[in-house]
Amino acid sequence: MTCSLSASVNDDYTWMAKAIKLARKGRFTTSPNPRVGCIVLDAKGELAGQGFHVQAGTPHAEVHALREAGEKARGGTAYVTLEPCSHFGRTPPCANALIDAGVSRVVVAMTDPNPQVSGNGIRRLQDAGIEVVTDVLAAESAALNPGFIKRMVTGKPRVTVKMGISLDGKIALSNGVSQWITGSEARRDVQLQRAQSCAVLTGSGTALADNPSLLVRKAEADLSDYPALPLRQPLRVVIDSHNALPGNLQLFTDGHKTLRITGQPIAPETDVPAQAISMKGDHIDLHELMMKLGERQLNDVWVEAGPGLAGALLAAGEVDQLVVYQAPKILGDKGKSMMTLQDFTALEQTPTLSLTDVRQIGPDIRLTYDIIS
Amino acid sequence: MTCSLSASVNDDYTWMAKAIKLARKGRFTTSPNPRVGCIVLDAKGELAGQGFHVQAGTPHAEVHALREAGEKARGGTAYVTLEPCSHFGRTPPCANALIDAGVSRVVVAMTDPNPQVSGNGIRRLQDAGIEVVTDVLAAESAALNPGFIKRMVTGKPRVTVKMGISLDGKIALSNGVSQWITGSEARRDVQLQRAQSCAVLTGSGTALADNPSLLVRKAEADLSDYPALPLRQPLRVVIDSHNALPGNLQLFTDGHKTLRITGQPIAPETDVPAQAISMKGDHIDLHELMMKLGERQLNDVWVEAGPGLAGALLAAGEVDQLVVYQAPKILGDKGKSMMTLQDFTALEQTPTLSLTDVRQIGPDIRLTYDIIS
Repeated sequence: MTCSLSASVNDDYTWMAKAIKLARKGRFTTSPNPRVGCIVLDAKGELAGQGFHVQAGTPHAEVHALREAGEKARGGTAYVTLEPCSHFGRTPPCANALIDAGVSRVVVAMTDPNPQVSGNGIRRLQDAGIEVVTDVLAAESAALNPGFIKRMVTGKPRVTVKMGISLDGKIALSNGVSQWITGSEARRDVQLQRAQSCAVLTGSGTALADNPSLLVRKAEADLSDYPALPLRQPLRVVIDSHNALPGNLQLFTDGHKTLRITGQPIAPETDVPAQAISMKGDHIDLHELMMKLGERQLNDVWVEAGPGLAGALLAAGEVDQLVVYQAPKILGDKGKSMMTLQDFTALEQTPTLSLTDVRQIGPDIRLTYDIIS
Repeated sequence: MTCSLSASVNDDYTWMAKAIKLARKGRFTTSPNPRVGCIVLDAKGELAGQGFHVQAGTPHAEVHALREAGEKARGGTAYVTLEPCSHFGRTPPCANALIDAGVSRVVVAMTDPNPQVSGNGIRRLQDAGIEVVTDVLAAESAALNPGFIKRMVTGKPRVTVKMGISLDGKIALSNGVSQWITGSEARRDVQLQRAQSCAVLTGSGTALADNPSLLVRKAEADLSDYPALPLRQPLRVVIDSHNALPGNLQLFTDGHKTLRITGQPIAPETDVPAQAISMKGDHIDLHELMMKLGERQLNDVWVEAGPGLAGALLAAGEVDQLVVYQAPKILGDKGKSMMTLQDFTALEQTPTLSLTDVRQIGPDIRLTYDIIS
C-alpha cells in the first residue's frame, strides 16, 4: 500500500508535467485568460481525455479533457495546471463540470492567483466529496502565466523590456545607424516574443525614427506550434505624451489595433483609440499607465523602445524583466547607450538584476534578467 | 589486421588526449617555452613513462617520459603534443633523445609552429627509421599554446584584453566609482588568468588612478594545480609614453618586475627597466610595442587597462582576444563606456568579434571573443 501510494505521487508529477506541456500550446492565444492544461485519467489510471485552453470565450481546458473522456471520467483523476474556476464567466464553472463528470480525485498545480477567488474552486470540489491534491509542479505552472499572475495580484501587466545591443551596451552609432546590430536569428526570436505578448509598447521617439509596424511577421516567426486560428496580433501601445505623432505612421494606418497614450485631453474626433494618462512633469505617469493597461486585461507587455522610455520604465520600477540580444560587436564610446538613467554617484543606487537565462541565438546571445530593484 | 590498425588509431587519440592533459600542468610555468606533454608506451603498448615540460631551462616533456620509461621505451611508442625539437638549446634535442631511447614509433599532435624549424624534428626521427604519425588532436594541442604559436609565426605575443563591465557596457560611474562592478568570483578568475600570462599590460591612466599591483594574489587564485615551484609573477608592463608616472607607484616599488614603456629617451640612471618605443602622434606605436614584447619572449600578454588603451589596441589591430566579465548591473548612459573608439558612421567600420565561450562566474558571466577584424 505504501508502495502504491508513492507510485501514485510520482505519477502525479508525470501527468502534471504533461498537462503543463499541453497548457503551453495556448501561449499565443489564451490571453487575457491564463494558459491552462488538463488531463483526465479513468478509474484504472489510464489516459481518458486531455485538453488545453485555446482562446477566451471558448471552453476551458477541463471541459476539453472531460468531453474527450466522456463516461470514462467517472471515478477517475483530473490533473489541472491551475485551480478550476468556480464562477460563471463567459463559460460555466469548471469545478461544477468536474463534479458533474464524477471524477473522484483532482490534482491541481497551483491555486488561483486572484486573491478574491483563490481556494473557492478547490473548496467546491472538496464539498462535493472529491479528493483534492495541490502544489504539484506549482512553480512550473506559475511559469506558464507570469503576466496573468502579476495582473491578478497587482492589477498591472508584466513588463518585459527588450533591447538589441552591442557588447559595449550601445544600441546605435552616434549618427543613429542601428540596422542591424543583432542577427536575423535574434530578430526571428523577437517575432516569437511579440506573438506571445498581449501588447507591444513603444515610445514616440522610436515611432518617429523607425516608423515600425511592431506586428508579428508570420513568415519570420517560427509559429509551427500555433493553434489552428488566425494569427493574433498584439495590441500596439504608443506613448504620445504631447499629441505630437503624425497620423500617417504605420502604427495608425495599417488597419491593426493601436492604442495611443496621451498626456493631453483626447479629441473626440480622433480615429485611433486613445488613453489619457496624467502627466508627471514632462512625462506621463508610468505607474498609472500600467494600471490602465492592466484594466484593459493585458497580461504581458513587451517593450520595444529606445533608451529614454526603457530607462524611465526601469527607474519607475515598472520593469519586471529585461531581454537583451547582445551582438558580438563593439560600437565604441561615441555610440548611443542602451539606457538613459540618472547620474548615479554610488553603485548601490544602480538597478539590481538577476540573470535567469543565457542562450546563443545565431551569432548573438540572449540574456534574460529579472529586475530585482 | 585492419581491426588492430583501427584500434591503434583510436588508441593514438586516447593517449594523445592524456598527453595534452599532462601538458596543461605546465600552463603556469613553461613560458617562454610552450606547454608540452609526452607519454611513452612500451613495445606491448603499456604505459611506460610520462612527463610534461615544467620550466624553461629544465628537461623537456620527452626527457621526463623517457627517463621514467628507461629500457621499456625500446620498440615502444612516444606521444608528444608538439614536434620534438631538433636543435641544441638550453637542453639537447629531444629528437635525438627519442632516437637514442630506441622508440619505434612517434605520434606528434602538431608540427613546430616556428617556420624556420618546422618539420626538422620529424625528419630527423624518420631518417633514423622511426615511424612518425602527425596531426593527432592538432587543434587541441594548438589550444595549449596560442601565445607561443602566435609569437613563433608573427614575432608578437598573443594579446588578451580583459574588461569588467555592466550589462550596458560601462566600467565605472561618471564619478569614477567602479569598485566592485563584478563579483569576487570574477576577480578570482582574473587571478588565474594573470597567473597563466607572461605579462600584464596596463596604461598610465589605470596606474595613476588605481595604483594597482597587478600581481597574482596567491590566496585569491585557485592554484591547486600549480607545479611544486615558487609562484611565478607575470612581468608588469606599464605604458608611460610621456615619462609622467611618479616613481612611488606600487608597480615601481614592490620589488617585483615591471617594464616601463616610454616614448621618450631613457634616462640611464632610472631604476625601473624601461623600453623606448617610437611615438606615433601623441601615443606610442603599439605595433612596435608588441614586436618588442615578442622579442622579450613574452607569449601571452594579459591587458588590464581603461577604455583608452583598450580601444587604441583594438583599433590598432593588436588584440587577439577579449575577455569580458559582465555584471548584472546597469550603470546608465552617464557611466564610462568600456571602449574609446572613433566615431563610426557605418556598422561595417566597427570591430568584428566572434564569441568563443560563455560561462557563468558567480553572479556575472564571462564572455570570451576572438577579434576577427
